[in-house]
Order: sequence, then structure tokens, then C-alpha cells
Amino acid sequence: MRKSVQDIAGLIKGEVVGDKGAQISSVSSMESAKENELAFAFSKEHLEKLEETGASCVVVPKDFNGPSKKTLIKTPNPKEAFVNLLSMFHKPEKRVPGTHERAVVSKRAKIGKGVYIGPCTVIEDGAEIGDNTIIEAGAYVGKGSRVGSRTTIHPNVVIYHNCFVGNNVIIHSGTVIGSDGFGFIQKDGIHHKIPQVGKVIVEDDVEIGSNVSIDRATIGETLIGKGTKLDNLIQVAHNLKIGKNVIIAGQSGIAGSTVIEDNVTIAAQVGIKDHIRIGRGAIIGAKSAVKDDVEPGKIVVGIPAKDARECAKELAAISKLTKNISKIFRLLKQDPR
Amino acid sequence: MRKSVQDIAGLIKGEVVGDKGAQISSVSSMESAKENELAFAFSKEHLEKLEETGASCVVVPKDFNGPSKKTLIKTPNPKEAFVNLLSMFHKPEKRVPGTHERAVVSKRAKIGKGVYIGPCTVIEDGAEIGDNTIIEAGAYVGKGSRVGSRTTIHPNVVIYHNCFVGNNVIIHSGTVIGSDGFGFIQKDGIHHKIPQVGKVIVEDDVEIGSNVSIDRATIGETLIGKGTKLDNLIQVAHNLKIGKNVIIAGQSGIAGSTVIEDNVTIAAQVGIKDHIRIGRGAIIGAKSAVKDDVEPGKIVVGIPAKDARECAKELAAISKLTKNISKIFRLLKQDPR
Amino acid sequence: MRKSVQDIAGLIKGEVVGDKGAQISSVSSMESAKENELAFAFSKEHLEKLEETGASCVVVPKDFNGPSKKTLIKTPNPKEAFVNLLSMFHKPEKRVPGTHERAVVSKRAKIGKGVYIGPCTVIEDGAEIGDNTIIEAGAYVGKGSRVGSRTTIHPNVVIYHNCFVGNNVIIHSGTVIGSDGFGFIQKDGIHHKIPQVGKVIVEDDVEIGSNVSIDRATIGETLIGKGTKLDNLIQVAHNLKIGKNVIIAGQSGIAGSTVIEDNVTIAAQVGIKDHIRIGRGAIIGAKSAVKDDVEPGKIVVGIPAKDARECAKELAAISKLTKNISKIFRLLKQDPR
Repeated sequence: MRKSVQDIAGLIKGEVVGDKGAQISSVSSMESAKENELAFAFSKEHLEKLEETGASCVVVPKDFNGPSKKTLIKTPNPKEAFVNLLSMFHKPEKRVPGTHERAVVSKRAKIGKGVYIGPCTVIEDGAEIGDNTIIEAGAYVGKGSRVGSRTTIHPNVVIYHNCFVGNNVIIHSGTVIGSDGFGFIQKDGIHHKIPQVGKVIVEDDVEIGSNVSIDRATIGETLIGKGTKLDNLIQVAHNLKIGKNVIIAGQSGIAGSTVIEDNVTIAAQVGIKDHIRIGRGAIIGAKSAVKDDVEPGKIVVGIPAKDARECAKELAAISKLTKNISKIFRLLKQDPR
Repeated sequence: MRKSVQDIAGLIKGEVVGDKGAQISSVSSMESAKENELAFAFSKEHLEKLEETGASCVVVPKDFNGPSKKTLIKTPNPKEAFVNLLSMFHKPEKRVPGTHERAVVSKRAKIGKGVYIGPCTVIEDGAEIGDNTIIEAGAYVGKGSRVGSRTTIHPNVVIYHNCFVGNNVIIHSGTVIGSDGFGFIQKDGIHHKIPQVGKVIVEDDVEIGSNVSIDRATIGETLIGKGTKLDNLIQVAHNLKIGKNVIIAGQSGIAGSTVIEDNVTIAAQVGIKDHIRIGRGAIIGAKSAVKDDVEPGKIVVGIPAKDARECAKELAAISKLTKNISKIFRLLKQDPR
Repeated sequence: MRKSVQDIAGLIKGEVVGDKGAQISSVSSMESAKENELAFAFSKEHLEKLEETGASCVVVPKDFNGPSKKTLIKTPNPKEAFVNLLSMFHKPEKRVPGTHERAVVSKRAKIGKGVYIGPCTVIEDGAEIGDNTIIEAGAYVGKGSRVGSRTTIHPNVVIYHNCFVGNNVIIHSGTVIGSDGFGFIQKDGIHHKIPQVGKVIVEDDVEIGSNVSIDRATIGETLIGKGTKLDNLIQVAHNLKIGKNVIIAGQSGIAGSTVIEDNVTIAAQVGIKDHIRIGRGAIIGAKSAVKDDVEPGKIVVGIPAKDARECAKELAAISKLTKNISKIFRLLKQDPR
């Protein structure tokens, strides 16, 4: 695909400064862009290096007024423009529908229209795959599990039996949906398994990164709400209820039966205790350990997690105290007792 | 399966208050139970909501005396009753023994009686699979490795060569047993691989969650003792010796050559240093970093981990100090020096 | 293979004390060595237990002068000798080249000479596999991806489309290369996916442990430099640039667009923020949280990470303050205000 700078400006409500007729065939980064490529200057650093990029045209914020020999497109929201143009120039390749001869699909499975099922996949009895869904090589869909429409299951994903994955879901490689919850009852020092007979429900528009572990519920369901996005290597324990449009960054883990309300943001390497509730829109800072309920909209951070401002104050106070430790101990020695 | 409330009470040494003849066909949770289902009220919260559940009968602690319109079964240990009835009503489906035509089993492998080997599995030369064991789709058993009897290997598990997995073991999807230990020798800034020629031994009755990494020993063995239970996404480094009936929660990691004695409990996201010893029955709190030996029976917590009571005291003291920081600094200014 | 103690001493520039003609057929550990096996005493503890090992011969440091009934080989660098002899006695078994009849290799893929491709592997259109490389069972190489020569891809590894893996690389099971970076743009509380159209480059001589997640770049590339070694369960986010000969221990995670310069060492369970720079040769202590640039050669530790000596001082000061808390508060009460 090729488009003129003028045409691109039209698509992103931008204004051209320079060569309107220049041809663009791809979107790239400031550092690696070549001729006929478009780059984006989001930051001050990028704007300072405008002349150094090999790009034929650079998209800049509307209020940028610096001089430049480059052809520019000024636009009110470069980040949004970036996403739109990236999607336009880099269309994901479509799989040709069909079931590979080396796929192992049960006769008692129900496969929709326009579905791609790759080699070495296994679809068990009673499983259902919705229309236009892609099941890549080596993926496994267990007995009675249902996968919705327009969903992509990447290579070597495992979905155990009796789970439900919605529409427009993306699940990356190595992720496991529906393994047994970690539940044991101890008797005389021996741990006896509590049967895990519940399921996992992944609602529409969810994206799950690679090597994520989502356990099935003991009874009932583990739930990942609509529009929620999970990064890689995340632990989702049994009976967890995650709301809608939640963001969870890499290597975070949440223990059993906790409730994460809608629009919560959880940064990386966070740990959250079992049986608590994180209120709507709360934000949990990276590497925090959350032991108690978090109120809606609150920002918490630390081990154990507390209000972010309090935590910053406490850290500053500790630093001040430890730097003045010799003064403090001189005072203590004056204490007559 | 259907049983009367009276029959169920008999199975769990319980006493019926209400309709002894009501029919039960399934076990469910207080929140989602419907007619002909049995629910369990473990907590005060559940007991307060007795009238709200759709269950036909609720199992309650023996000493519960509140009024209720529900049919109740009073029993001394509801949690144990829960596990027993769950096992009874939700019998796991049995695999029909046999080797799928799309399994790749070496002629030089030795397969026991009553074994199920799923599609797209690979069993290499010299591997042995014990009687009544289940090897699910996409799993790999390397050259010379032995898997015991009545063991379940879930889809896409990888067991490298020359490892040993015992009887009645459960290994969940994505878990890797026997990858190389992380050992290098540095020379002039270059890291040279130390060959990892040892093995992994997983003893009987062990359960391992999904996406766990267990490295083989450099020489000798990495050991997971009988009855030990590992959650998801755990790192078990080379030459680690884990004792019997140990519990390790999600995302914890233990470095090389450390010894974890019997009946230790390790909470989630814990890190434990190499070459140390965690004494029998010790408990390590969530997100702790353990740098030194822990005595048998001790409870430690924190980064770095210390005695749990000491740690709580220290946290309280820090909080007190930081809250009084302005008072302390007023005092310091009075100090004539 | 069998060699005399005298011959072995010659290989490691060692000096024999004892029976030069004793025959050695294997290398083992002090604890488990038997007759005709060689063990290594690296530590004081090992040297004190010299008489207890079953080994026929023990390699000791050159300056060891203690009496021993054992046959010894004294050598200036026992650790290096260990690696050399281990490699010699435990030669990894070679795969017989060839493509298994149950491999699924596209006709539009290009396979080098001497390559082994195991059963249930999938090699997509346009993929290239270099000479003498091993692709084990269940592994996946996506469209247009290239894998170099003498590389080993262990079972169930997934390499997405359009990635590049160099020569002499080892990738362990369950690892995912090239899954989408975690990038979304929020609009009215909904998270919209930013297309991830970049790639991953893994340079020569890299080793990557099991269940590691390496995301592709949004645009451009995520880079793992030559000779770098990654342990298990590591998160490598999109657009990360990792230099040469870097060491990253288990369960560490690094956020997007950060730069890790050459010869950095990152211990286990570390978290590193996005868009920062870790200078050449820096060392990051276990479980640290790094929020800011780290200067070359610096050692940092803690949450948040700071200079290791400062951190140790601060911990000591905190301990001193909290232990004297009652004294401090007695003083405060004397404060007249």
C-alpha cells in the first residue's frame, strides 16, 4: 500500500507542513525509518532529533512550532494517529480457513464457519469453536469447552475441559486456562486434594499474554471480565473474579476468591492476597503486596501496600531518620535514664 | 447420582434438621446453588446468608444454632465433609485406555497396562510409563525417563530425558521438568555453559501446577519429595532438595542446591537463596526474600526475611517513628552540638 | 570412556598424589560418587569430608596440603577442570539428522543440512532453519522466522512469525519468542490494542531457560545480545534492548523499551522499569525494583533499588532505630513543646 502525505493527513485530521505529494509505504520508528516511511515524534527527545531520522515524513503534536527541513504532519493526538496508521499499513495476515490434515478434531466437536485449525491441534469431544476463529498449531481445547467467534488461540495454548472463552479474544502461546486450583486439606501432615470442579470464563475482547496460568474454580467459576488485558506470566488463582477493562502487567499474581472490580490497573510483579476486594478504578503500583481491601479509585503501593502519598512520605521520613542516625544516638546518650 | 439428605448426613456423620427426604444431585456454592443442590456454609458470612441460597440443603458446623427455613446438615467438620462429597458427586471422567493413532511412541519405550496416551504426544526411546497412567495430548516424555503408575500428565507438559516421575503424581500443562540448570563459568567476560548432566526426581503423590520450571541437577538430582504440592509458575533451580509434604504457592522461586525440609510451607512470590536450609515445618510469608537458614518450625517474613513477630514489631516501630518525624527533628535542633 | 588418573591430570594441568593408574569412567559429586568416579572438592566443607566420598579420586585446589588416603589431583582451577571433564565424560547425545514423518514442515520453508526436526513440530511458510540445528518435538517456528546453525530448540518452544534466532543458541521448553507486546491505548475506559508489528532478534550464543516470555517490538525489534544467558520464567517486554553477555536470573522481568548494556548481571525476581538504562557491568541484587537509570559498574539493591552499601547502611540504621524506639519516645516526651 502507498499513500501520499496529503492523504494520510486527511485520515488523521492533520495539517501538512512540507511536501504533500511525498509517498508513504510503511510506518516505522524515528530511529529506524527509511525513505518512504512515516515516523512519529511523541516525546521532546524525538522532536529534538527531527533532522536525524531517515523518515520521509514525521507526525508531530499540533503545537510543535520548531523549524524543520522534514515534511511534517501536525495532529492533535499523535498517539491515536500512530495506532490508526499502524493498523492500516500493517494489516495482520489472514489465515485461510480450514482444518489442517494433521489437526485432531473430535467428530463430536462443533466447528463454526470460516475457522482455521492448525496442525497438531487437539479439539476434544463436545468442544465448540465459533465462526472465523483461529486455533493455531499445537493448541488444545478440552472436552466440552467453548471458544467464541473471531478469537485467536496462539500455538501451544491449553484450554482444559469445560471452560468458556468469548468472542474477539486473543490468547498467546504457552498460556493455560483451567488447570486445577491449588486447594488441599491437611490431615496429619498430609495434603489431600480438594477436587476442582468449577470452570473458567473468559469474556469477550479479552487479551491474555504468554505463559499465563488461570486456574479453574473449586466450584463455580474463575472469571476474566470483558475487555480486560493480561500481560505475560500472570497467576490467576481459583475463583478469582476480575471485572471489565482491567489491566494487569507482567508477573503479577492474585490469590483465590479475590474480587478485582472494573477498570482497575495492576502494575508488574504485584501480589494480591486471597478473599479481598480491589475497588473500581484503583491503581496498584509495581511490586506491591496487597493484603487488605483497596477502596475504589485509590492508588496504593509498597510491601505491604498503602496509600501512595503516605508511602512516599514514609520513605522520605525513613531516609531522613537514617541519615541523621548519629545525631539521634548522640541525643539518646544524653538521656539521663 | 442422586442421594437423599438423610443418606448424605450418614456419609458425613451429620445430623439433619429439616427435610430428610430431599433429593441431592450435586454439590455447589452458596451463591450459585439451585434446587436439588447441596451447599456449604463455612464462614460467618455464609451462615448469615443461609436464607438467600437456592440450595435445597446446607451443611453447617455442628454448633450452629440459628433459626433457618432451610434443611440443614450439622457436622463437626464441614470442610472435610465438603471434600468428601465433592469427590463423590464429581467423579473425574476416566480416559479409555489406549494409544491414540496420532501419538508418537518409540518402539523402544515401555508402556504399562491401562495407559492412555493422547494425540500429538511424543514418548522417546527407553522411556517407561507405568500402569493406568494418563499422558494427555501434546505432552513429551524424553529418552530414558520414567513415569510411574496412576499418574496424570496434562497437555503440553515436557519431561526431558533421564528424569523420574513417581506414582499418583499430577503435572499440569506447560510445566517443564528437567531443563538445564542455570550454570555458567565466566572467563574474560564470556559465560561458558556448565554441562547439566544430572536429573530430576519427582516422588509419589506430588502435584505440580501449570507453567512450573524444574531444572535438572548439574550432577546428581533435583528432588521433589513425596506428597509435596507446587502451585503455578514456580522456579525450582538445579540441585534443589525439597522434602515431603511441602507446600509452595504461586510464583515462588528457589535457587540452586538449597534444602527445603519436610512440611515446610512457602507462600506466594517468595524468593529463597541458593545453598541454604529451611528447617522442618517452617513457614515463609508471602513475597519474602530468604537469605539465611531458617530454623525448624520458625515463621519468617519480609525482605530480607526475619522472625514474623520481630518483623511486625519493626514495621510498627517504623510507622511510629515516621509519624513523629517532625517532633524528632525539633528535638535534634535543640541538640547543642 | 575410561581414563587413568594420570591421563586426567595431564588434561587439567594437575599433579597426582596417590594411585596414578586408577581408572575413571565418570564425573560425579562428593556425596554420590562411587568407585571409578571422579569428584571435585571446591569448598572447605568438601575438603573436610575427603575421606567420606566413594570417589576413586578427588580433584582439589593446588594449595591443599591436608593428609588424605584418597588419590588426589591438585590443580590451580578445580572449577574450570570440573567443566572441562564434565563436558568430556558426559557428551550430549547427538540427534540423527532428518525430519520426522510426523513433523509438519512447509514446502516453502528452507531447511539446512544436518538438521533434526522432531515429531509434531510445525515449521511455517518462509521459515529458515540453519545447518546442524535441532528442532525438538512440538516446537513451532512461525512464518518467515529464521533460526541459525547449531542451535537447539527444545520441545514445545514457540517462535512466532518474522523473528530471528542466531547460531549456537539454546532455547528451553515452554519459552515463547515473539508474542505481542503489551500495548494499549485507552479511550473512554476501553483499552484498544496497539498493533505489534516489530520482531525479536536473539543473537548468537544466547541461552534461554524454560517458560520465558519475550515479546516482539511494537515497531523495530526486541533484542537479546550475543552471549547473553536468561534463566527460567523471565519477562522480556517489547522493544527491550539487552546487550551482550548479560546474565538474568529466574523470574526477573524488564518493562518495555529499557536498555540493558553489556555484561550486566541481574539476580532473581528483579523488576526493572520501562524506558530506563542499566549501565555496562552493573549488578542488580535479587528482588530489587529498579526505577531509575543505573550507572555502569554500580551495584544496586532494594525496593526501590539504591547503591548496595547505602542500602545496607540504611537497613542497619532502621534496625538500630526500631530497637531503640522506647528510648526515643521517652526523649520525645521530655520535649517541652
